[in-house]
Amino acid sequence: MLQLYFFPMACSLSSRIALLEAGIEAQYHLAHIWTKRLVDDGGDFLRVSPKGAVPVLVLENGERLTESAAVLQYIADVKPEVRLAPRPGDIDRYRLQEWLSFVGAEIHKAFLFPTFWYKDDGSLAKPRARIIETLSVPAAHLAGREFLVGDAFTVADAHLTWTLLLLRPAGIDIAQWPPLAAYLERMQARPAVRRAIAIEMALRKTVAA
Amino acid sequence: MLQLYFFPMACSLSSRIALLEAGIEAQYHLAHIWTKRLVDDGGDFLRVSPKGAVPVLVLENGERLTESAAVLQYIADVKPEVRLAPRPGDIDRYRLQEWLSFVGAEIHKAFLFPTFWYKDDGSLAKPRARIIETLSVPAAHLAGREFLVGDAFTVADAHLTWTLLLLRPAGIDIAQWPPLAAYLERMQARPAVRRAIAIEMALRKTVAA
Repeated sequence: MLQLYFFPMACSLSSRIALLEAGIEAQYHLAHIWTKRLVDDGGDFLRVSPKGAVPVLVLENGERLTESAAVLQYIADVKPEVRLAPRPGDIDRYRLQEWLSFVGAEIHKAFLFPTFWYKDDGSLAKPRARIIETLSVPAAHLAGREFLVGDAFTVADAHLTWTLLLLRPAGIDIAQWPPLAAYLERMQARPAVRRAIAIEMALRKTVAA
Repeated sequence: MLQLYFFPMACSLSSRIALLEAGIEAQYHLAHIWTKRLVDDGGDFLRVSPKGAVPVLVLENGERLTESAAVLQYIADVKPEVRLAPRPGDIDRYRLQEWLSFVGAEIHKAFLFPTFWYKDDGSLAKPRARIIETLSVPAAHLAGREFLVGDAFTVADAHLTWTLLLLRPAGIDIAQWPPLAAYLERMQARPAVRRAIAIEMALRKTVAA
């Protein structure tokens, strides 16, 4: 059985969404990303992954895979019939990789990461100014489109959905991009997305900030 | 023929390295990423790509692909016989995606981007402190290994090589990680890498900072 190391409402949420969308049963382990302890048994998360970051997906053979862009594509390919990713070789597979990179690098690492890890000590003015321009890219793309890639939900949507959920705690009003606000509402209406968020919001309250 | 929009010594260097390693002929267009003008004809780079960022790969059918992680995998798959990427479905393909994500998000966007775009106004203390930890990840991986993925050069090596070349102008001494210093030396000994750097260093002098 696949195993996912996660921290509630961190970027591993998109991997949980993908697993639920695909109907893949998995074991979930809460890894505290600040203390680097495993909540189950107090074990050392750095022994699971020296990066100390989530998600970590443990494959059936015991190998560990990190980085959302890789983990999400792996999960999608476990059940190709669910079509959470276009087939390899299809041009849309590269579009998926393009969006996974944009969400992971431009939204997550260039904005959300400094916002939540560096806190507001005056060093955030530039990332915050830049995020407005960054988010106009998916907003323009999603005007008149239901999903990021092709005409169905993919793991790229799972990943973008997670970043959009964090705009509010980051102090950014999504209402300034009506296509993004409507998209997030559609995504949150999906049973798997709703369930993933409900599980992680409940767990989030159990871990110290 | 494929076309690549690039800026000399920016992250599009890894796409040029990949094209040269694969022996793929391409047309190259210099896009000034600060002024957003095309150097050839003064045209508007934002009409080529609203992101205004390099690389942009124009495919044979005219479609435009952005984001190094996607562009590099596309280039590798044009000539699968050169093996610049493991076959889709192979576990090493996910390892490639894992490294492309780490290099693109953790080294490029979390460190190089703020260093060169935000300049040093006091907001860089945290990214600079963090990069030491970040670079210990590929350093540990490359101790005793020749390449990032499997036993051959892949597009992930092209991408990491580019980021390592920028450590010096970013004020980070690569000598503190002997495996990274040795790796960069090996990579720079490859004819395609050397040629890509020579071309772009010459062009870099022609564009205003």
